[in-house]
Amino acid sequence: MSYLISLEGGEGSGKSTVLRHLENALKEKGFSVVCTREPGGIEIAEQIRTVILDRNNVKMDARTEALLYAAARRQHLVEKVIPALEAGTIVLCDRYIDSSLAYQGYARGLGMEEVFSINKFAIDEYMPDMTLYFDVNPEIGLARIEKDSKREINRLDEESLNFHYKVREGYLLLLSRDPERMRLVNAENDVEEVFTDAWETLERYIQERQRTAD
Amino acid sequence: MSYLISLEGGEGSGKSTVLRHLENALKEKGFSVVCTREPGGIEIAEQIRTVILDRNNVKMDARTEALLYAAARRQHLVEKVIPALEAGTIVLCDRYIDSSLAYQGYARGLGMEEVFSINKFAIDEYMPDMTLYFDVNPEIGLARIEKDSKREINRLDEESLNFHYKVREGYLLLLSRDPERMRLVNAENDVEEVFTDAWETLERYIQERQRTAD
Repeated sequence: MSYLISLEGGEGSGKSTVLRHLENALKEKGFSVVCTREPGGIEIAEQIRTVILDRNNVKMDARTEALLYAAARRQHLVEKVIPALEAGTIVLCDRYIDSSLAYQGYARGLGMEEVFSINKFAIDEYMPDMTLYFDVNPEIGLARIEKDSKREINRLDEESLNFHYKVREGYLLLLSRDPERMRLVNAENDVEEVFTDAWETLERYIQERQRTAD
Repeated sequence: MSYLISLEGGEGSGKSTVLRHLENALKEKGFSVVCTREPGGIEIAEQIRTVILDRNNVKMDARTEALLYAAARRQHLVEKVIPALEAGTIVLCDRYIDSSLAYQGYARGLGMEEVFSINKFAIDEYMPDMTLYFDVNPEIGLARIEKDSKREINRLDEESLNFHYKVREGYLLLLSRDPERMRLVNAENDVEEVFTDAWETLERYIQERQRTAD
């Protein structure tokens, strides 16, 4: 049984913390799990990410950025995700195609359909089997990040609050279009509650899939 | 009067040499001209090109490569080509969208339509107004390159001869589909003859366009 599960959400939604807890919970149930996040230590994808996040690259066009994200996604998929799936592992991916659709497609106004077209090229048949969307008011999310002094500020954190509201709108639009694949997790609660909510959703999904496969 | 003219062809077709002669001929006629070639000194596009051509990146997936070319193309277009066109300049571009269609789409087998879709995203409405395709037998072209010791060998030169034959096939296919935009130049002749052929084609094109605009 191998599934590609993506975790999505705005800045400070806590999804990366919850991801570690989900990993442990899956392992306790005896599943083989790989947790990853683009560029995920994949050399070529790391090089691409360096270009995207370079604070000197202020002239970066929004379409260039979207193409670079798609390129890094492709390489990470080919070198890390596909081999894990083929080995029968559950892959938990911290951000995937929906990030591009919400951030570049919707919030930056490039158009979801257009950004989907380049990402379709990048991921081919590897759409996520299931996506956990961690929903949080951007003001709460950004306040969490500011408190976390360990985290380095990059070019993307410097976007205006309005941008983050549009990101959330984009995610909610995606959710409304594909409620079968995307499942909402209320990420404004304490991390324990968020984890419980996410875990129940994930466990139920795996059980359903296993039942169908029997 | 501003036109976007692309020059296309396989390795060693001599198009880059001819491009300089075309530039001079246009200037003598009083035209304002910009000659460029992706990444063209555009910092972000140069960074992307460094990733593509890095000989250590042997694991580079063909789709990743195609997305990176499209990203570099976008940035070069936005920062260099569009401003020149808006200033009323003729832009001569050494390789553009057809290179991706012939190399990645056809020769690498990604599919011309699929590679076109990501390049459409990159160039938006900026299709070349006219394209000079310098046609040469790959064995002749590659022999020219080998004689030119000044040129550094990169990852792409190391492709097999068969790959270069497929690139030519791809170009000829594009030509057959869009003979209005793409014009064939026989690039197996001496450089003087190749230039004369290319110049006559270019001059005729400009005259036609000017007549239509009157």
